[in-house]
Amino acid sequence: MKTSQDLTASLKRAATAIEATIAALLPDVTGDEQILIDAMRYASLNGGKRLRGYLATEVASIFHAESRGALRVAASVEMLHAYSLVHDDLPSMDDDDLRRGQPSTHRKFDEAIAILAGDALQTKAFEILASAETHPDPAIQVRLVAALAEASGAAGMVGGQVVDIRGEGRNLPIDQVRRLHAMKTGALIRYAAVSGAILGGADSRERAMIDAYGRDLGTAFQVADDVLDSTATEAELGKTAGKDAASGKSTYVALLGIEGAKAEAARLAESAVASLSIFGERADALRALARYVVERRN
Amino acid sequence: MKTSQDLTASLKRAATAIEATIAALLPDVTGDEQILIDAMRYASLNGGKRLRGYLATEVASIFHAESRGALRVAASVEMLHAYSLVHDDLPSMDDDDLRRGQPSTHRKFDEAIAILAGDALQTKAFEILASAETHPDPAIQVRLVAALAEASGAAGMVGGQVVDIRGEGRNLPIDQVRRLHAMKTGALIRYAAVSGAILGGADSRERAMIDAYGRDLGTAFQVADDVLDSTATEAELGKTAGKDAASGKSTYVALLGIEGAKAEAARLAESAVASLSIFGERADALRALARYVVERRN
Repeated sequence: MKTSQDLTASLKRAATAIEATIAALLPDVTGDEQILIDAMRYASLNGGKRLRGYLATEVASIFHAESRGALRVAASVEMLHAYSLVHDDLPSMDDDDLRRGQPSTHRKFDEAIAILAGDALQTKAFEILASAETHPDPAIQVRLVAALAEASGAAGMVGGQVVDIRGEGRNLPIDQVRRLHAMKTGALIRYAAVSGAILGGADSRERAMIDAYGRDLGTAFQVADDVLDSTATEAELGKTAGKDAASGKSTYVALLGIEGAKAEAARLAESAVASLSIFGERADALRALARYVVERRN
Repeated sequence: MKTSQDLTASLKRAATAIEATIAALLPDVTGDEQILIDAMRYASLNGGKRLRGYLATEVASIFHAESRGALRVAASVEMLHAYSLVHDDLPSMDDDDLRRGQPSTHRKFDEAIAILAGDALQTKAFEILASAETHPDPAIQVRLVAALAEASGAAGMVGGQVVDIRGEGRNLPIDQVRRLHAMKTGALIRYAAVSGAILGGADSRERAMIDAYGRDLGTAFQVADDVLDSTATEAELGKTAGKDAASGKSTYVALLGIEGAKAEAARLAESAVASLSIFGERADALRALARYVVERRN
């Protein structure tokens, strides 16, 4: 894995396998709740890049974890991510009618079904982890559950969403912007990396290195996202450009300038790569991913 | 424990201990996300009867489980229940401004914070279970997580909420009404009972008996609720009476008549009690609870 073409192909292969896993985890039912399953599928099988799931499976493969369990962990983190997007898009939150060019879940169905589909996707993400089909050892299962809960709850993703809402229209200092993003988007990306290490039975030193990689990758991802939001076209993004700045959110670009933010993203990607040295060439895909994250155009 | 006064005192003692446990699990933070913690506390420390938490601790005590772990399991199921109430009260769902005579969470805060507080309460419920502080054995922790996920997700509580919404304005046949309530309210009550058995290391026969008790208790609770909804005054209920019938929901009272529903509730309570025979007098509190559930006036 040396070229970005290799990475693109690898991402695409992983996305296909992860989506098949998600689909198998959301089978049809015979009752009136079928519409809930439809909405859960609509929200979680919408053609995302599956960066979080890819990260989980690639880290897991470094530790020779079983691919079936790794795909379940990947499906779980993607369902958790999908739930957060469904709720973020609601009228009382970001009020987004579109998600990846398609009607957002509450526009395709309705608000009540969207709220409940998000709720059930969160539940499903935990249910998948707490299963012998993910890993035969309950100690591993429960470590995954605890790590996902920490990353996605009040101290992580959801807490970050609240900090973001409360910060709208205020000029947050850089340390608060960093904290906001470390919670809102960083925690789940960091978890995705660590989940692969937990699943693969990494020792504490290995896990710490993967954790450092995930932390820097998550921040790099967000800084690059702010750069994209202010430089890419809407056609490239598949969503409204410049929206964060327009809604009065403090961005890295506002604080560092475009060139400063680009340099910060590149620095973070190299810091992420530096944490991988102990893994040798087994981590080449993760190195390529770190560089891809800051060079992507969408 | 023979009299209903004993039970009332016992319920009250348990509620105090459970609320103290919930409060300790939701400590203050220093960031802008404090409002999320405030909303999580507001939603989960609102003076409910704590039937689910009481059930978990009482079943756990039959099996001599540590009370600290039992209180954490009780706090977890009450947080899960609280999240469901916060989301059910939202404008796009039942649109309730009041909950137990106080402003519902989205009225006290706002819709976005209410949605996120519900989300984070769900996460917290799983986080509490996946901890050595709940039980030292990861196999027990993970069984609790899996059971809660099954009871509260698309096949349980949230699925039942969808069936309920879809059934509004239609005359559902009795078997579909039973299925709806077995999912919407029954599954979590049944889980609450079973959680105590899991925590206490019950064998499969004991667990099956507790499961049968929880299933009948949950149904009895719902049938009695329908009776209360059509016979009690609003002052007794602390909420709008006759609301289910007015919103076109199929109720047990509509299907069986008030006397028929009362007889059904009493039959279910006795069926619940019958499942407890193997536990002797250790289960007297659970017997009293089954009778209380169908005789209560609020």
